[in-house]
Amino acid sequence: MKAVRVTGYHQQLAMTDVDKPEVSGPHDVVVRIGGAGVCRTDLHILEGQWAEKSQVALPYTIGHENAGWVDAIGDAVTNVAVGDKVILHPLVTCGLCRACRFGDDVHCEANRFPGIDSDGGYAEYILTTARSCVVLDDSLEPAAVAALADAGLTAYHAAAKAARRLRAGDRCVVIGAGGLGHIGIQVLAAISPAELIVVDRNPDAVKLALGIGADQAVVADGSQVEQVLELTGGKGAEVVVDFVGEGGSTKQGIAMTRQGGDYLIVGYGENIDVPTIDLISAEINIIGNLVGSYNDLVELMALAAQQKVTLHTQQYALADFQQAIDDLDAGRVRGRAILVP
Amino acid sequence: MKAVRVTGYHQQLAMTDVDKPEVSGPHDVVVRIGGAGVCRTDLHILEGQWAEKSQVALPYTIGHENAGWVDAIGDAVTNVAVGDKVILHPLVTCGLCRACRFGDDVHCEANRFPGIDSDGGYAEYILTTARSCVVLDDSLEPAAVAALADAGLTAYHAAAKAARRLRAGDRCVVIGAGGLGHIGIQVLAAISPAELIVVDRNPDAVKLALGIGADQAVVADGSQVEQVLELTGGKGAEVVVDFVGEGGSTKQGIAMTRQGGDYLIVGYGENIDVPTIDLISAEINIIGNLVGSYNDLVELMALAAQQKVTLHTQQYALADFQQAIDDLDAGRVRGRAILVP
Amino acid sequence: MKAVRVTGYHQQLAMTDVDKPEVSGPHDVVVRIGGAGVCRTDLHILEGQWAEKSQVALPYTIGHENAGWVDAIGDAVTNVAVGDKVILHPLVTCGLCRACRFGDDVHCEANRFPGIDSDGGYAEYILTTARSCVVLDDSLEPAAVAALADAGLTAYHAAAKAARRLRAGDRCVVIGAGGLGHIGIQVLAAISPAELIVVDRNPDAVKLALGIGADQAVVADGSQVEQVLELTGGKGAEVVVDFVGEGGSTKQGIAMTRQGGDYLIVGYGENIDVPTIDLISAEINIIGNLVGSYNDLVELMALAAQQKVTLHTQQYALADFQQAIDDLDAGRVRGRAILVP
Amino acid sequence: MKAVRVTGYHQQLAMTDVDKPEVSGPHDVVVRIGGAGVCRTDLHILEGQWAEKSQVALPYTIGHENAGWVDAIGDAVTNVAVGDKVILHPLVTCGLCRACRFGDDVHCEANRFPGIDSDGGYAEYILTTARSCVVLDDSLEPAAVAALADAGLTAYHAAAKAARRLRAGDRCVVIGAGGLGHIGIQVLAAISPAELIVVDRNPDAVKLALGIGADQAVVADGSQVEQVLELTGGKGAEVVVDFVGEGGSTKQGIAMTRQGGDYLIVGYGENIDVPTIDLISAEINIIGNLVGSYNDLVELMALAAQQKVTLHTQQYALADFQQAIDDLDAGRVRGRAILVP
Repeated sequence: MKAVRVTGYHQQLAMTDVDKPEVSGPHDVVVRIGGAGVCRTDLHILEGQWAEKSQVALPYTIGHENAGWVDAIGDAVTNVAVGDKVILHPLVTCGLCRACRFGDDVHCEANRFPGIDSDGGYAEYILTTARSCVVLDDSLEPAAVAALADAGLTAYHAAAKAARRLRAGDRCVVIGAGGLGHIGIQVLAAISPAELIVVDRNPDAVKLALGIGADQAVVADGSQVEQVLELTGGKGAEVVVDFVGEGGSTKQGIAMTRQGGDYLIVGYGENIDVPTIDLISAEINIIGNLVGSYNDLVELMALAAQQKVTLHTQQYALADFQQAIDDLDAGRVRGRAILVP
Repeated sequence: MKAVRVTGYHQQLAMTDVDKPEVSGPHDVVVRIGGAGVCRTDLHILEGQWAEKSQVALPYTIGHENAGWVDAIGDAVTNVAVGDKVILHPLVTCGLCRACRFGDDVHCEANRFPGIDSDGGYAEYILTTARSCVVLDDSLEPAAVAALADAGLTAYHAAAKAARRLRAGDRCVVIGAGGLGHIGIQVLAAISPAELIVVDRNPDAVKLALGIGADQAVVADGSQVEQVLELTGGKGAEVVVDFVGEGGSTKQGIAMTRQGGDYLIVGYGENIDVPTIDLISAEINIIGNLVGSYNDLVELMALAAQQKVTLHTQQYALADFQQAIDDLDAGRVRGRAILVP
Repeated sequence: MKAVRVTGYHQQLAMTDVDKPEVSGPHDVVVRIGGAGVCRTDLHILEGQWAEKSQVALPYTIGHENAGWVDAIGDAVTNVAVGDKVILHPLVTCGLCRACRFGDDVHCEANRFPGIDSDGGYAEYILTTARSCVVLDDSLEPAAVAALADAGLTAYHAAAKAARRLRAGDRCVVIGAGGLGHIGIQVLAAISPAELIVVDRNPDAVKLALGIGADQAVVADGSQVEQVLELTGGKGAEVVVDFVGEGGSTKQGIAMTRQGGDYLIVGYGENIDVPTIDLISAEINIIGNLVGSYNDLVELMALAAQQKVTLHTQQYALADFQQAIDDLDAGRVRGRAILVP
Repeated sequence: MKAVRVTGYHQQLAMTDVDKPEVSGPHDVVVRIGGAGVCRTDLHILEGQWAEKSQVALPYTIGHENAGWVDAIGDAVTNVAVGDKVILHPLVTCGLCRACRFGDDVHCEANRFPGIDSDGGYAEYILTTARSCVVLDDSLEPAAVAALADAGLTAYHAAAKAARRLRAGDRCVVIGAGGLGHIGIQVLAAISPAELIVVDRNPDAVKLALGIGADQAVVADGSQVEQVLELTGGKGAEVVVDFVGEGGSTKQGIAMTRQGGDYLIVGYGENIDVPTIDLISAEINIIGNLVGSYNDLVELMALAAQQKVTLHTQQYALADFQQAIDDLDAGRVRGRAILVP
């Protein structure tokens, strides 16, 4: 089959012929790719930023946001059948460790991450396991939802955590209305009663946010903390979700958080550097957020099927992978780039 | 001032002149009534059903769903000022018992219930305390929201409890699309991601429910349990909220509840009679629901100000109280009857 | 190998030679039995009470409280190795349904129950799967803990649920200080700050309870509700855990529950028959309880290893199974009877 | 009456005669002091560290950890009577803001802090309000518990928050076995099932900790992170409670926290400075902690009455206040210094 592979760092991806993956273990599932999201992380992989952490042996196939159709299943697979339309949770997890047994499979002690540390989805087929397959509603197409598998799932996870403590009349600030923020806003509008205040440097992004569920829009022109405080009676918001995590957003985000409130960090880059006395006197919590669990992905797909979360995609044939990469790198992709074999 | 009073059980209410209430305690607040809801409970009071429980001395002024403008305040009142537009929490609570200190003021160990055990709001003025006043948003009018003070608050309380455990993709059954159910459906649609399945005997009520947030409508024609099971893959709903509580709804509601699910009882009348083995083998919870707390009322008013919860009202001059009572008794009121002094 | 089997209802168990179970599936685990609890449910099985529900084909091997040593494992088993000392969760679960993925494996949609609907542990070996094995601390012996696998796990599950809402100064009533209650009291004393009030008909059981963690003991002589109300300032307890569920205990238990409190039903037999108005006006919850999850069993074994939960056992050779059954039936067993092959 | 007052910063306290406080407001309560804790914060006040923040006008009476007997009450006080033995919550709160109405009175929007911003308890009498009085069990004496009013309450609040997520088999690290840590360890041992690992620089403090509930003791000799990781299978603890907050404890504490775990910050001094990527990849939460609520104090007094939390005190006559201050400053106080008028 055709596969687009990393053959060396700081060089372009290459499409080659490789063996189609086969079922060997009892829970193995081979999926025919219907769509593979092209993510900024893929650019970072090519720059070698993940080499040490992933320890992946080159060459390998990248692509960690995958959806498609079940092509073959192992003997012990009972939850999907050949032909099923599925989206894949980004991690392959063990199901036996305490984290998996609590539904926190993201903290699985023995996970594998296709596209990062083993062969991913820029290909015609991918090998995964039964535990990673979420069956899609009839109304959803793999190429349309593939990018929700990782970026969207991360946004959902944080938004759902925020929603669990938000009550009617509360305010939730979303910092960053880009890729993740775009999903986060839709999710919060769908599942939370809070008034949503969106903060972004880009006036267009902020305007767009108002169209997908935000109640208030703040352009981050240096006065964003003051603007948020003004919108919240000088007290700050019950929850702040920071999808940026760099360029000063962490200090600003904490300053926007109300006494007793939660600051959820999702984006990353800079250090959080805050006096302990500030956290204590205001009794603020800083909440870390990783990608969502399998159950989170099931829930996000429910929202997608209800058309409460949608994603604009720009589709490319698998063979045009370089164009997709170049467009992403140059900021020419509106929404998310998807490779379709 | 004019007040409509209970002068004896099994006889009509009478409008008389009584002294305008005055502030005596430091936290007292006198409110000029802008609207007083006429509730089915008022009919029951006249029938003497509450006489023993309330131990109220006749004559007294009824009316327990009240909103208006602050007319006078005691020395220690800091949260409202004369002229403020307010809705009144139905209970006057102590603020010092453990329940009050946890925000569960409904379980206050030393509460008073104006309109039930002391003078209520079928009058020009009512005496309450600072702890019962919720300031209204500019956009809300007392006569439009008064009926949310008790019936609406009860529906909100149960719906908010349901919402706290509902996730995207879950199902929530609402039994009864009448007065309380009508509010409960709007609240659930606003604050919960669940698919709402509404069950009512009245095909018109069910149809109406679809217009205010319900996703599925089931006419209770004897096959309602089967219909709900069919809509839920044979498993039942994660949460069932029963606003009826009589005529067999409790047995049906429990039968509609999924393994590990919650059956919330709000309406009342019949006994719940269920084999212990059924509760245990399915691990179902039966959750009692009283009227909401002060904080619940604040949240409900936030939803009202956001126009996510609205109520159709039929307004009557205070002097036309008998007409309002008669219309309610005869089923001629659409939405809620409100007395406006 | 030797196995004690049900060959027909209303007749005695029979020890026969059967094939030793073998690993066939990838997650299969064969365990050499170190101890199998003899439970009252086993008597009920012989009386045919479970025949219809379990649909088990006779003859089969009973015994659903099992612990021992891993004897053989399937290809995909990674969490246990041959020779490991293990206790077995009573259910064999799928790991793939939504309940399993949330850690609520007890509600697994495709479970098997060895000893009830397939071959159990009154034998030299038993077939289970990786998902059911909890590795024991070095300090624990299979024969000493086997009876915690089902009865103890049920008590733990309810007690842990109770503990999650109990605060220092709260009261928790435990109805029934027998088999399950005995474990429940030890668990509550270990993990909850509440004052424990134990109610039992048997003065000796109540006295024993005081020695294992109860703070107050009430003999159920007909005045138990009054006694509990007196011990709780007339208000009842924040939580009541009812391990009896018959003979009027449900009505009494609900009457002992404070406003806003939880009544946890664990034992079963009679119907719960309560006016809806009572549940609503006091806002009481009736909480169903099934056996605990895999994670619950891990936690219970942690308490056992810390010697915070202990069980008195009376051990019998496997060949003396009839004696054990007879002793149990005649009330001659102190603590729990255990068969040791 | 006699009162010990701040007459200027950077100079000694002075005992003078001042008017005995009187009840003027309806909820006022005058308490005859039975014990007033001497706290390190009092030293900081004298150094002027609180001058700007508190804006207190000099001279004023210090002392913010107070207990005694009710001497006089306002007209509207119903929860205490003259003669009652009480401990005082450190804040005087409004009871009307949303925080107070949720039981989070520590975040009251209109609070007063006797001893910090108004007259405190180094005196014969203090003025407080009904909302701050917790009635003591007969077995407790004001002078013995006064120091639990602030320092102890802070430790309780954090420990109770930790306990709410700790399960049997989990580990909880306590950093700092000094004043607050000493209480925190006792609370955690009483209300949590977790294994307690105590970390302190002082080998004697660590040894002492083992006697009051700690399961493991780690001397902070530079290898404390490694030691904790070794005690937790290389994974870290589910919860870390840091009562130090300086000298590098925050970085170490976060490094001791398991994936998905909570790091609770209580002590303060240094900045928390952590890469966002570390919080995200391990999905760790940093939880701020202020002093406890009124309800927390009620719960702590329940533990004290059950003798589960005790405090060693060194009592001084009020006139010997300078000796107490000097002893505290010189590290000569074992446990807590208490002034007894």
